[in-house]
Amino acid sequence: MQGYRWGEQPDDPNVIKLNTNELPFDPSPQVTQALRNFDPSILRVYPQPTADALRDQLAEHFELRRNNFIVTNGGDEALRLALTTFVEPGTTFAMTSPSYSLYPVLAQIQNANITEIPLGDDWLHPHDLAEQLNDAEAQLTCVVNPHAPSGQLTSAQDIEQLARTLEGVLLIDEAYVNFVDPQLMYNLVPLVNDLDNVLILRTFSKGYALAGLRLGYLIGHPALITPMVEKTRDSYNMDALSQIIGAAAFADHTYAQTLWQAVREARTQLTDGLRQLGFALFDSQTNFLLARIPGNAKLNAQQLYLALKDNGILVRYFDAPRLTDKLRITVGTTAQNQTLIEQLQELLT
Amino acid sequence: MQGYRWGEQPDDPNVIKLNTNELPFDPSPQVTQALRNFDPSILRVYPQPTADALRDQLAEHFELRRNNFIVTNGGDEALRLALTTFVEPGTTFAMTSPSYSLYPVLAQIQNANITEIPLGDDWLHPHDLAEQLNDAEAQLTCVVNPHAPSGQLTSAQDIEQLARTLEGVLLIDEAYVNFVDPQLMYNLVPLVNDLDNVLILRTFSKGYALAGLRLGYLIGHPALITPMVEKTRDSYNMDALSQIIGAAAFADHTYAQTLWQAVREARTQLTDGLRQLGFALFDSQTNFLLARIPGNAKLNAQQLYLALKDNGILVRYFDAPRLTDKLRITVGTTAQNQTLIEQLQELLT
Repeated sequence: MQGYRWGEQPDDPNVIKLNTNELPFDPSPQVTQALRNFDPSILRVYPQPTADALRDQLAEHFELRRNNFIVTNGGDEALRLALTTFVEPGTTFAMTSPSYSLYPVLAQIQNANITEIPLGDDWLHPHDLAEQLNDAEAQLTCVVNPHAPSGQLTSAQDIEQLARTLEGVLLIDEAYVNFVDPQLMYNLVPLVNDLDNVLILRTFSKGYALAGLRLGYLIGHPALITPMVEKTRDSYNMDALSQIIGAAAFADHTYAQTLWQAVREARTQLTDGLRQLGFALFDSQTNFLLARIPGNAKLNAQQLYLALKDNGILVRYFDAPRLTDKLRITVGTTAQNQTLIEQLQELLT
Repeated sequence: MQGYRWGEQPDDPNVIKLNTNELPFDPSPQVTQALRNFDPSILRVYPQPTADALRDQLAEHFELRRNNFIVTNGGDEALRLALTTFVEPGTTFAMTSPSYSLYPVLAQIQNANITEIPLGDDWLHPHDLAEQLNDAEAQLTCVVNPHAPSGQLTSAQDIEQLARTLEGVLLIDEAYVNFVDPQLMYNLVPLVNDLDNVLILRTFSKGYALAGLRLGYLIGHPALITPMVEKTRDSYNMDALSQIIGAAAFADHTYAQTLWQAVREARTQLTDGLRQLGFALFDSQTNFLLARIPGNAKLNAQQLYLALKDNGILVRYFDAPRLTDKLRITVGTTAQNQTLIEQLQELLT
């Protein structure tokens, strides 16, 4: 069995890091404040076991209730808990493909069978996805929306239709949802009032510039949330500091929205720049782009990745079906994106 | 299936909390310093995935190598990883009994069979423990040493003998090892050079007054550690702050030793006080005592627990075989212990 391979984390702070979808901006000043004000003697005792203060804050924001939420040690723990809770060993876990490479790793740890349903050429769901998943008797299906690594958004209507037809549990991994264009009015959260087979995964890693903190959460019907809170979760899964820092970041909604808007603007700039160089790519609703290298390029995608790396820019290359002619590039600051475009121009001409 | 029931965590700061084995002392001033100096922009990026700086620090202290260690989100994650990695569903997990009530919960999540071997009346291992475990074909056996909830220490010689005879993996949960009398020269760490079936669990929760931080680690042969580091662990299981705060606390060895000595002295005082009131208890090598209430007491253990709770003192009562006539009492400060003794005197006479 292969473990999950995380993206490179270089020690050199001068590297332009466009490989692991982190934000190029610092977390909220309220995070700094919370750290400075934190009383270390709080660490002496066990943390509040179920992160209730943070759950109440989330509940108020989303107009739901505390028992619609579980707070987790990053999105990864949420995925593992969903697998452990809803997929018995020997039964089937399903995912669309390509997707987050951690999913099959977690499924294998749980000794589950894995069904992978290929996405269409536009990286959207095949029209008979629900039927395929029901035929496979999928206990749990994970879809990333907006999709990674393509950045494509499946509409709320299509996801809702899928959820209503699906016999198993549907986990919608919305790690990148904060970067969706607000004009699209994409919002699946109210679904959890209606359907008891929907889990929505969110994370502070991208939208709140807190990848280093490991903080995520699931939104869902209490029938799905309660077993994870009371049974499968490690008893004190969230440390006291993360609970407090997460609360501070989430409360500063104005700052967060500024970050999201900055990413959208830089994304447009980077998309245009890449297209001008001959890269082919869909419009992205995330903080990264999946760009197919120009047909006439002197270097293939892997060579281009390595050449950029030599020049101090890290992007992501996946040695996987349908991805070997593409690079996944995290949207950086305006300056970082400009440097990347200049480097690419030089390498390709 | 029942989830794990954690000890009460009251909101009232005036409660004397002798129920969950936390230290009554603050963490090291170096922890405060690390928090004050922490650069929040570090949180923007993913943490070092395998906590290598902390592993190197542990390796230097214990005269081992980085690959002898995995750092975990509290001892609970370490236990879960050991279960997930070494016990296939349908095979056998074993423990001595009574013991940490989380063990069977984790084993059930992993769909393992559970073998419980009762401890003797002195809470020590039966002489044929290894044979019983081998007969049960235990893939993984967890023993707590010093033992919880009794505080009894099984000698290093006996544990080594057990490890050498055992066919499966032996996990020695040393959550309370820092409080063992140094004159006993108890040290099993060098065993991991010799044996590839031994895992030693340590935590920062008790010995470093950092229960709120969720930081633990396993020491073992690389043959056992590597699969957990590379396969079963969540990819970024340790957040950036915990890695740095843990390093600061561990480096301040002088402060930690002062805490441990203070616990030992308060333990002696509390043991004497309880014995004078007619409680029966073994000498403890941990930061808690398991005390059988006096035979002629007006209240039984549960009533005594409730009466103390009414008076603002929390201790632990276990509704479990062999424990219903006893209370588990965490060693507090000298003043807290004195208050407890006075309250008990009043309640019992």
